[in-house]
Amino acid sequence: MNKFSVIGQSVPRIDGWAKATGSAMYTDDLSLPGMLIGKLLRSPHAHARILSIDVSKALALPGVKAVITGNDPVTNKTTHWRMRPQLADMAALASDRVRFLGEEVAAVAAVDEDTAIEALSLIKVEYEPLPGVFTIEEAIAENAPRVHDEFDRNINPSVSLPVSYGDVEKGFAESFHVRTDKFSTPTVIHAYMEPHSALASYEPPGKLTLWASTATPYYLKGDVAQVMGLRESDVRVIKPYLGGNFGGRNVPFALDFCAGLLSMRSGKPVKITYDRKEEFNAAGRRHAARLELKTGVSKEGILLAKEISVYLDGGAYNGFGPTVTFLSGLYHTVVYRLPNYKFNGYRVYTNNPIAIGMRGFCGPQAHFAAETQMDMIAEDLGMDPVELRLKNVIKTGEIVPTVGVIKSCGLTEALNKVSSAVNWSGRPKEKGTGKGMAITCFGQMSGANFNFYNTPYAYSGAEIRAYPDGTLTLFSLAADVGQGSDTLLCQIAAEELGLKIGDVRFIGNDTAVDPVDLGAYSSRQTMFSGNAVLAAARDLKQQLFEAASPKLETSVIHELEARDGRIQVKGSAKRGMTFGEAVMCVLRAKGGKEVSGFGTYTPRGKGTATPAVGYGVAAAEVEVNKETGVTRVTRFTMAHDCGTNINPMAVEGQVYGSIQMGLGYALSEKLIIDKGRVMNANFLDYKMPSTLDMPEMVSFAIDTVDPEGPFGAKESGEGPINCVAPAITNAVYNAVGFRVMELPVRPDDILGLRKDKKG
Amino acid sequence: MNKFSVIGQSVPRIDGWAKATGSAMYTDDLSLPGMLIGKLLRSPHAHARILSIDVSKALALPGVKAVITGNDPVTNKTTHWRMRPQLADMAALASDRVRFLGEEVAAVAAVDEDTAIEALSLIKVEYEPLPGVFTIEEAIAENAPRVHDEFDRNINPSVSLPVSYGDVEKGFAESFHVRTDKFSTPTVIHAYMEPHSALASYEPPGKLTLWASTATPYYLKGDVAQVMGLRESDVRVIKPYLGGNFGGRNVPFALDFCAGLLSMRSGKPVKITYDRKEEFNAAGRRHAARLELKTGVSKEGILLAKEISVYLDGGAYNGFGPTVTFLSGLYHTVVYRLPNYKFNGYRVYTNNPIAIGMRGFCGPQAHFAAETQMDMIAEDLGMDPVELRLKNVIKTGEIVPTVGVIKSCGLTEALNKVSSAVNWSGRPKEKGTGKGMAITCFGQMSGANFNFYNTPYAYSGAEIRAYPDGTLTLFSLAADVGQGSDTLLCQIAAEELGLKIGDVRFIGNDTAVDPVDLGAYSSRQTMFSGNAVLAAARDLKQQLFEAASPKLETSVIHELEARDGRIQVKGSAKRGMTFGEAVMCVLRAKGGKEVSGFGTYTPRGKGTATPAVGYGVAAAEVEVNKETGVTRVTRFTMAHDCGTNINPMAVEGQVYGSIQMGLGYALSEKLIIDKGRVMNANFLDYKMPSTLDMPEMVSFAIDTVDPEGPFGAKESGEGPINCVAPAITNAVYNAVGFRVMELPVRPDDILGLRKDKKG
Repeated sequence: MNKFSVIGQSVPRIDGWAKATGSAMYTDDLSLPGMLIGKLLRSPHAHARILSIDVSKALALPGVKAVITGNDPVTNKTTHWRMRPQLADMAALASDRVRFLGEEVAAVAAVDEDTAIEALSLIKVEYEPLPGVFTIEEAIAENAPRVHDEFDRNINPSVSLPVSYGDVEKGFAESFHVRTDKFSTPTVIHAYMEPHSALASYEPPGKLTLWASTATPYYLKGDVAQVMGLRESDVRVIKPYLGGNFGGRNVPFALDFCAGLLSMRSGKPVKITYDRKEEFNAAGRRHAARLELKTGVSKEGILLAKEISVYLDGGAYNGFGPTVTFLSGLYHTVVYRLPNYKFNGYRVYTNNPIAIGMRGFCGPQAHFAAETQMDMIAEDLGMDPVELRLKNVIKTGEIVPTVGVIKSCGLTEALNKVSSAVNWSGRPKEKGTGKGMAITCFGQMSGANFNFYNTPYAYSGAEIRAYPDGTLTLFSLAADVGQGSDTLLCQIAAEELGLKIGDVRFIGNDTAVDPVDLGAYSSRQTMFSGNAVLAAARDLKQQLFEAASPKLETSVIHELEARDGRIQVKGSAKRGMTFGEAVMCVLRAKGGKEVSGFGTYTPRGKGTATPAVGYGVAAAEVEVNKETGVTRVTRFTMAHDCGTNINPMAVEGQVYGSIQMGLGYALSEKLIIDKGRVMNANFLDYKMPSTLDMPEMVSFAIDTVDPEGPFGAKESGEGPINCVAPAITNAVYNAVGFRVMELPVRPDDILGLRKDKKG
Repeated sequence: MNKFSVIGQSVPRIDGWAKATGSAMYTDDLSLPGMLIGKLLRSPHAHARILSIDVSKALALPGVKAVITGNDPVTNKTTHWRMRPQLADMAALASDRVRFLGEEVAAVAAVDEDTAIEALSLIKVEYEPLPGVFTIEEAIAENAPRVHDEFDRNINPSVSLPVSYGDVEKGFAESFHVRTDKFSTPTVIHAYMEPHSALASYEPPGKLTLWASTATPYYLKGDVAQVMGLRESDVRVIKPYLGGNFGGRNVPFALDFCAGLLSMRSGKPVKITYDRKEEFNAAGRRHAARLELKTGVSKEGILLAKEISVYLDGGAYNGFGPTVTFLSGLYHTVVYRLPNYKFNGYRVYTNNPIAIGMRGFCGPQAHFAAETQMDMIAEDLGMDPVELRLKNVIKTGEIVPTVGVIKSCGLTEALNKVSSAVNWSGRPKEKGTGKGMAITCFGQMSGANFNFYNTPYAYSGAEIRAYPDGTLTLFSLAADVGQGSDTLLCQIAAEELGLKIGDVRFIGNDTAVDPVDLGAYSSRQTMFSGNAVLAAARDLKQQLFEAASPKLETSVIHELEARDGRIQVKGSAKRGMTFGEAVMCVLRAKGGKEVSGFGTYTPRGKGTATPAVGYGVAAAEVEVNKETGVTRVTRFTMAHDCGTNINPMAVEGQVYGSIQMGLGYALSEKLIIDKGRVMNANFLDYKMPSTLDMPEMVSFAIDTVDPEGPFGAKESGEGPINCVAPAITNAVYNAVGFRVMELPVRPDDILGLRKDKKG
């Protein structure tokens, strides 16, 4: 029995109609009168000094309204890590030097796209090529060429954050068995359907409106203001409908700055939309990683110590670097009980395109290494890998030094559920039969606690207005990026106020209108924005109760409730009034002022990294064709502990999407970069799984109730991807009898053609 | 010396850049993906029964996505006068009967305009023509055909509101001189450059977004909800930039309803934009009036009694009927001291297109009659007409029964100013020389006090948010229709908070975002919205003071001030902090919650009709060519008491615009309707004054400070038009020696070709 009326229902998305019928406006759908089209000129060199830029011929082309370069006056640098200003390296355009192939060196705005493209061809840039570094190994070599002059071996020490605790040397000394393994993961891209787009309209003397395909409008507002030399609130960022995020919309790119600068220069609105090639080359990618894991266990399989070294290929600039690096260390501490832990994390500058956060924010990298090694340790100990996991998984109430108390954890139940569902104990144990199965675990933070942006605002704010007709308007800057957060937040408001989801109008995505919310990253919308909405609903409900109480002549011993569209004495539908009547009571009492509730959420005292951790367990079943080397995932089962399932259909969507993305990460996807040049910048050569590649999928909800989450909910947007790849590759190991320690595991690996990748 | 820093400055419009560069979005500039174009089928009969409508062929035309008629299920009727539901007669489409030529009987939505137009031609409507009434005289005749069956002699008694007071019979009996005159004024149209446009996007199960060229988004929201059978707040109305109002955007038209209904039916966004012919035929017009004035004066010229009978040609439906009718009586009471007054006002249904409010809301009609008769009385008494006016004009502090205390009135100063400026006493007194001069007075309410819409909301609300970077965002649903109210409201916020206008961002025009404001009509934006903004600024300032005071260690004997971008001890710039720092103090104290002030204004206890009256005096100087009959206004002088001039440049703009519009009303404009058919539905045949027709214009500000107005300000948007026409026609009388009692006074009248119009 569901004790809720809206929470726990599989509610269709509130944006479903617009998206399904095609009336949804994405950024590139927008058009303003007199709008110009902007295009960016990109460096053909991965590393070079810019000797000169001559834009005169481009400017002279009829129809060209503005040309800017990195040497134009107002272009400061910015970073999301304002707490560490030395990390600021994002600028609108390169000025003296280009650091990756595809870096933006000039931007033009013209009356149409053809003219803008022609203008690009008329810009003359003189380069002096410089030696570059293109792999982690090259970059960290002694005396390696420097991507940024300040940083020896291309490591910016400001990127590192402390994650270690305990005494690993003591732990290893006490261990029965210690093993060290090296893993390697590729760079992949977010590959959403909607390319980046930005439309800027600048009005003197200093007001900018920017429509942008961003998942973090609040950050973008500050970043753009910083780069353009404007005051933060002189920039208004509006996020139209968004076609996917996965972390790729959390940092600004050149288009976000250049649209504004070109509008400022031309006096006209300017739109820049990336084409697919630009998406592949210059719109962010997942960090490739080299990971070394040293792990010690007792004879019984209890984890005693772990030391991790991680090198991340960051590309030419910081992006969300420190966060990604920190998290690459954190994951190892939240899934299994671990008394001693040492983390050595390095994000390395290279002359590759910029790497940023991507779904899991290094979770897939960390989990691939950790979950593969868990299976290896189990094998070393002659132990069932599920049994090994059951012995070590975190349980509700345990304290993790990097996070604090884990207030809910369904890992044990999830392991049992999945094992039972796939008949784990009954599986064929023999290796190399061409069929294999494996089970893995994951953990994922529900939103980031650290204030890296140094915001003075609550992390999430929400306002709810109520009307006499029994409807609500919910204001939130939480970013629906396709994950369904708008719908979820409406459910929370409706539930708390006893209304239906159709009673709620969502007004979001506008920094000038909505209360500050840091946006969609680190799986924070449910926990943070959801709690803010819940607080706003409670604030509003209290006002309704206070105004209704005298009219209902309730005594203090009676409590009121908001239920079924009414404000009434608990359990007594007769002693009440409609929700709208209660709103009218407040309205009259306040002299006709809008009836509004306001709420915020900031995780003060809620742990050091995140207020809650989402968990889950996956089982992959594979068949490997030994003739062709092709791996087919036949079934993929996941049990997901995201606390209370607010919208089960949406959670299932996250699980299925994670399986698809993890499947590509495991078996096919890799952005091939040769000396800084992306070699497969299209969807033919970059192989994502299609619907035909998808396995049968089974999704279970593990019911926990996290005391910190709104109605008990936690994250579900990122965690499930984390353990998909190792579940598949461990299953492949069981099917073929040998390990491939580098992702993706492709037919040539299976056929033994690339021995160097074997473990 | 100006004691203000922003108030009283001629500030360029905040929308000036967008409008001047062409980037401003008007409703018809908008486009949504998949948007359909809607068109309306109009009746070719002025009065007819609809026997049948066959839309099957239209529906079968490829590209047609929806066709609706008045017989479709959800189309209720609505009115702005919700206090009198019996006045509800506005529907989306005619159902059983059409009442004017051009009335909407069906609507189609198709993939493009051509297809929509073709579809209209395929709709077959069978009509049975009915006898119609086309003049006031025909309509009120005994046994006249009825436009609405319920109303004998085509008068809906619910339209009338009481205005009379005193005892006119006694007044006339005591009078030395009584005269009765009949006047006639034409119907004219608003003639803004931007035609009406509405873009509706309906999303099931019941949310509608409507972008519309409206000056009253709040009313439109309720009207559309009512007609479409939705809950009020399920409708969101957004007003893009607007190209003129003059009262023509205060009531909904068929397009506003049909865009929504067609979107609901088709599942696609639908845009309808009127063409110029539709604007002339079916988008409202000024009421033609027949006025009879009986006025009694003492020997000394003191007004003792006045009885007015006004008949207004309302056309087929109510529009803003009761308000217009009421005001046609009210004007006579606020300019001159009048102990006894009787008003008989009738708005008459005819089979002409609907008449609605237009700039002055019957002020030009009333003032033409009253100010003409004042000159006639002066002549009867052998008295200087300015002297007659000086003896009778209201003075500050006097009580007017229809309004209450007149808290500010600059009429005496204005009369003196204008007389002196035009050298009134030195003018040639002889009549018939071809040159003439005349001086007239006006009064105009600053916003309507009556709650005809029965709103539970404050009449105006405003919110101001403040940011640590020293900027503000101002939220208001006040409608800038071109008059500059957005700029004015930003000035008020900036002034009160010691900031500059460039520090303010205005977010308006969205019923789902902004606090309720009843919108732009009755010259209410400065007084009502301005006071709400001022209250919000004061609320915010108080919060800043409270948070800054401890940090500044001020004692209670010191007062703080917001000045020059700082919060500081009064007069001591050293003991203070920047505005942004003070905002940060509040932000920190509130745990990162948005820093926001809220204010409302409702004229409770502020008089019966309006909280304040704007005043002014005009002088027209004309030359009449006796050969051609052409009148040329050589100079037009106006002294305007709008209280404090918040933005003198904007006030001048209102004055100049009023002179242009009044000039057309006096000399050239008339919508010619023959048996219900508009005969001059284009700008060639409908003669508006162009820049070449404009006189030299002189504008004086009469400095009064109205204690009720924000910083002492009153209306300036409508009043100045009221006395333009009589100033011109009285001057024409002085130039030619005979009167024309019917507007416009055109060359054929001057040449004596239309003797019937002579007084």
